Amino acid sequence: MTKPKVAIVGASGYTGEELVRLLLGHPDVDLVAATSRQLAGKTLAEVFPRFAHLPKAAALAFSDSDAIAIAAKAKIVFLALPHGLAAEFAKPLLSARARVLDLSADFRVKNADVYREFYGHEHPAPELLGQSVYGLPEVYRDQIRGAKLVACPGCYPTSILIPLRPLIRRKAIDRKRILVASMSGVSGAGRKVEADYLFGECNESVRPYGVPKHRHLSEIEQELSYLAEERVTIQFTPHLVPMNRGIATTIYADIAANVVNLDPAVMFSGAYAEEPFVRLLGDQRLPDTKHVAGTNFIDIAWKIDKRTNRIILMSAIDNIVKGASGQAVQCMNLMLGLPETAGLI
Amino acid sequence: MTKPKVAIVGASGYTGEELVRLLLGHPDVDLVAATSRQLAGKTLAEVFPRFAHLPKAAALAFSDSDAIAIAAKAKIVFLALPHGLAAEFAKPLLSARARVLDLSADFRVKNADVYREFYGHEHPAPELLGQSVYGLPEVYRDQIRGAKLVACPGCYPTSILIPLRPLIRRKAIDRKRILVASMSGVSGAGRKVEADYLFGECNESVRPYGVPKHRHLSEIEQELSYLAEERVTIQFTPHLVPMNRGIATTIYADIAANVVNLDPAVMFSGAYAEEPFVRLLGDQRLPDTKHVAGTNFIDIAWKIDKRTNRIILMSAIDNIVKGASGQAVQCMNLMLGLPETAGLI
Amino acid sequence: MTKPKVAIVGASGYTGEELVRLLLGHPDVDLVAATSRQLAGKTLAEVFPRFAHLPKAAALAFSDSDAIAIAAKAKIVFLALPHGLAAEFAKPLLSARARVLDLSADFRVKNADVYREFYGHEHPAPELLGQSVYGLPEVYRDQIRGAKLVACPGCYPTSILIPLRPLIRRKAIDRKRILVASMSGVSGAGRKVEADYLFGECNESVRPYGVPKHRHLSEIEQELSYLAEERVTIQFTPHLVPMNRGIATTIYADIAANVVNLDPAVMFSGAYAEEPFVRLLGDQRLPDTKHVAGTNFIDIAWKIDKRTNRIILMSAIDNIVKGASGQAVQCMNLMLGLPETAGLI
Amino acid sequence: MTKPKVAIVGASGYTGEELVRLLLGHPDVDLVAATSRQLAGKTLAEVFPRFAHLPKAAALAFSDSDAIAIAAKAKIVFLALPHGLAAEFAKPLLSARARVLDLSADFRVKNADVYREFYGHEHPAPELLGQSVYGLPEVYRDQIRGAKLVACPGCYPTSILIPLRPLIRRKAIDRKRILVASMSGVSGAGRKVEADYLFGECNESVRPYGVPKHRHLSEIEQELSYLAEERVTIQFTPHLVPMNRGIATTIYADIAANVVNLDPAVMFSGAYAEEPFVRLLGDQRLPDTKHVAGTNFIDIAWKIDKRTNRIILMSAIDNIVKGASGQAVQCMNLMLGLPETAGLI
Repeated sequence: MTKPKVAIVGASGYTGEELVRLLLGHPDVDLVAATSRQLAGKTLAEVFPRFAHLPKAAALAFSDSDAIAIAAKAKIVFLALPHGLAAEFAKPLLSARARVLDLSADFRVKNADVYREFYGHEHPAPELLGQSVYGLPEVYRDQIRGAKLVACPGCYPTSILIPLRPLIRRKAIDRKRILVASMSGVSGAGRKVEADYLFGECNESVRPYGVPKHRHLSEIEQELSYLAEERVTIQFTPHLVPMNRGIATTIYADIAANVVNLDPAVMFSGAYAEEPFVRLLGDQRLPDTKHVAGTNFIDIAWKIDKRTNRIILMSAIDNIVKGASGQAVQCMNLMLGLPETAGLI
Repeated sequence: MTKPKVAIVGASGYTGEELVRLLLGHPDVDLVAATSRQLAGKTLAEVFPRFAHLPKAAALAFSDSDAIAIAAKAKIVFLALPHGLAAEFAKPLLSARARVLDLSADFRVKNADVYREFYGHEHPAPELLGQSVYGLPEVYRDQIRGAKLVACPGCYPTSILIPLRPLIRRKAIDRKRILVASMSGVSGAGRKVEADYLFGECNESVRPYGVPKHRHLSEIEQELSYLAEERVTIQFTPHLVPMNRGIATTIYADIAANVVNLDPAVMFSGAYAEEPFVRLLGDQRLPDTKHVAGTNFIDIAWKIDKRTNRIILMSAIDNIVKGASGQAVQCMNLMLGLPETAGLI
Repeated sequence: MTKPKVAIVGASGYTGEELVRLLLGHPDVDLVAATSRQLAGKTLAEVFPRFAHLPKAAALAFSDSDAIAIAAKAKIVFLALPHGLAAEFAKPLLSARARVLDLSADFRVKNADVYREFYGHEHPAPELLGQSVYGLPEVYRDQIRGAKLVACPGCYPTSILIPLRPLIRRKAIDRKRILVASMSGVSGAGRKVEADYLFGECNESVRPYGVPKHRHLSEIEQELSYLAEERVTIQFTPHLVPMNRGIATTIYADIAANVVNLDPAVMFSGAYAEEPFVRLLGDQRLPDTKHVAGTNFIDIAWKIDKRTNRIILMSAIDNIVKGASGQAVQCMNLMLGLPETAGLI
Repeated sequence: MTKPKVAIVGASGYTGEELVRLLLGHPDVDLVAATSRQLAGKTLAEVFPRFAHLPKAAALAFSDSDAIAIAAKAKIVFLALPHGLAAEFAKPLLSARARVLDLSADFRVKNADVYREFYGHEHPAPELLGQSVYGLPEVYRDQIRGAKLVACPGCYPTSILIPLRPLIRRKAIDRKRILVASMSGVSGAGRKVEADYLFGECNESVRPYGVPKHRHLSEIEQELSYLAEERVTIQFTPHLVPMNRGIATTIYADIAANVVNLDPAVMFSGAYAEEPFVRLLGDQRLPDTKHVAGTNFIDIAWKIDKRTNRIILMSAIDNIVKGASGQAVQCMNLMLGLPETAGLI
């Protein structure tokens, strides 16, 4: 039986490289194309010496990014492109009946007005917003299975939504009093050649950025509002820290006034005991990005502070894996009816 | 005219080493003794190769920690000792009429019960609590000048109290809704030889710790309550990040219900325009630990989030300088009637 | 068919943890025991949160290090112990007919006098030296297959011997004029709780150490002398650099006087074209530790300097994988008749 | 008495920023201009937040790089420009009677043919080569005092020439058998916005580069040949390591055949006992970049290896200070008749 064919459009950045890693190592799919305008003609092995020993990396050359040609080759296409550009590629791919996993922000926010507010330009394909599925398997597993267009979540949202979801759904916390501080490794900025991300500017440096209205806020609030079935506004501050991979997120929430004896262990177990990529640390151990680096896991811990009647949620993910490419592969597994963990554990 | 003589008790850790750096380079004082039980007999130059070219570092050997002998030599004594031990040294030094700058936590918390709650043992010298002055010049400048015993603030508290003070005093924020996330470089843990602080455990790692009741909370809440003239309870989560020096702190506070048109620029200028070590970045630039590393400055920025009616305060300090040894020297300058910035700029 | 049972003695350090990672993920062997005096009773999942999702990590607890009991359970035993101690364990294990892969230095040097010279104490089991095989598959593949006792090479020697071997065997270089500079990540020091390896002492620091006679020199010279069939003395300087994993090695050698038109590409291809873990970069690309981190590969490049008539060889490995635990698993695969790359690619 | 006026042309890079730091803090000179085409109009305080508290940094704005205008203002001009461009600026500045300290490579190599060979283009001002002085005070102190044009040495050459000089002059080593391995922090590449120097490409990476013929080789060999009074060819390999500042250099040399009982301590003391910025560690302690970071010192250690009859020299400098801007200020002090250490200790 031939394996399903998959392709990556825009494979030169960090999420693209991680997709290459995961798909070359995946037992059940066949990576048939990787595109990059500036790398066209070079093999994967030349561009990514890490994979030089893999026969397919030596054989497969980056191609130009022609959507029609790609759709003719592969029925699953990953878009690892900047926002704006991704939507332009999605249109012809979908028309040519490819199924699309978009790692950009283009199809995460359902409301084109919110998109314009946060991304600063008109949405390039508002007609597609209705059919995209937010690619968070812990929430939308069933819809992802049948989706034609999956909007893979941002890295920060992944680290925030999964811990908050059980509490929001059970109305255990005050939805007006959720504050989040996140710390991201520098790969979160992508392989962008800007002075801000030079080694000398990031090493021995910690700095907040995107205050107070980071773009990821739009999808975080959208998804929390869906879960809460009412408008949720949160406070979110990201920080850049000197490491390659990882996001540590700390969430503060007021325990809802009418809740007595909140038992997060029961709540989290109920929500996630069967989830293959959620590891619950409980209230005695704290997460550490180094324990999830290179994996598709999210580690979650919690503490109740009786002095303040708040719950503190802490999570750790690899921003490039569970926060991007790994989660995209998890979605792909669902779309193809493969074991959800295939190629990821 | 002879310069005032100063000594350091417990000079082997990071704050001790930084005191050595600052005091050897100070134009107006004379470092006459540095003690360390395990290093006794070695010169400063041998232990700290960084200072090997300084004649005094080559001449001055670590001595045993005999309080009486030290007090006979120096009228200003810095204690860079673990909490508990510091108080034991302070007693005989004060009796022998030395003036003491304690960098430990022993005299920061005025209430011996709170000390026991947060530090887990009885206070070793409760009778001295009444006379200690909290060594934050931006708040207690006048009292520090005449103090016999100065309790130098913790690193986290310094990064939190200075930004919050103007808002608390003007009742501009809701004192029940202050939340803080801080990120510290590893030197914050001291030169403690524990597995948790090995390079391999800290590099490529970000992790929260001390949740929800880090020891520094005791002094933060005490000082904020003094400023507010009522009980203030805050939420505080520290995180360890892979850099040597620096603390980045992000504070979230609800703007008080009755405040309209909060103007932080006016408020901060009013409070700090004349402060030699406070740099106000305003609401357009954000702080970065790399800009304060090695200095005694605190950089402060703010943003008002109209969506949530909160103010976000962000600060950066060098945890070993403004967060410890530099601030101690700033206090010493006040105690000796020297220019406050002597040896620090 | 039941899988061969394997055990790790001394699994608490970095090489032990990496063996746990590789053996838990190995498709063809069954990890049945991991010992550690200080961790006895705790599960692998508790000690190594990274593996917490693996059922076996949750089920398998560290046991005490009783050699007889281990040999009763497993026929292949990895020793990840300090030198000296390893030999003491090897004796009863071998007597009980276990096959032993020792990651310490105890059985690498064949001459007990050289061992004493470099390690500062008498060899604890000189009678076993005759039967140990040096576990470098690229040189001793056939002997490893049948070995009862394999002495896994040191990390530096691995990065040096593989590049030098083809040139030495073909007498292409002057064996009296080989100089080596190596740079190792801090994990090379093990999980040793010493002040020298604290984050604050290693970050922003590069330093030579072990000059001029690092312990690994003993095995490097032994093996080069075997290959050359005459005494080889080399110059070797290791340096500690601030990263977790990786060794970069640069080797300088005088091209032998009688050699004209040295063609390293032919020589290296002849030696290593079929080797599954040797990647030849040629003379146009240079190795980078980040391309081998987490893998069992050694990347090798070369440059001929016509000005000086020298060849410069450059290699990169992950010191914990190809330099220790991965190479040990490669040896195990050979001993068990498994595919050599099983569990490693 | 008015202080001598100095200016920096091209102040936007790392060496320019470090010159700003040193000259703003210098007690005896007056920084009157800093130029940068892309930063013109911004103040030093805006561009370098680190100096924001300094009145002059707030008052002084970057200006356009008009050589005539600069020469009218300042009699000492530092050029922190790319090679090629520096020479173009030097010409009009010298014509206008400014004295020039050039931090580029343009005037280091005296022979325009060698310049073309190593830098790939014709020398832009060969007529000036005769009057430039190589700015290594430990060698050319007297010539620097009177120089109109000083070619400040490269960072690697500084770390290599100072340790080698006493041995070369005394003919203690074989001048055909000198090999060097150096490891540099990433600031050595300048504030160049290239993908190779992004955080994610440098962190957790060690890599050789510039093999076998790095550009600095030209000046190293020139200067060693002058000292030896015959042609010296050396082997040199630089490596990039993940830290901000620092170069560690390890030099291997064969002890000359006719030398018995080489006593490096005597030799180094004879050469450098009076040097203000050379610290001799002897043969018991090894250098560490962290002990020189931020300083103008070079730390030097040595070991004699009796097994190989070689001497190993090890040095550490801060590549931006003693390797660039600090050394330039040291030269300036000599040119102005100031104490050589002014503004540097």
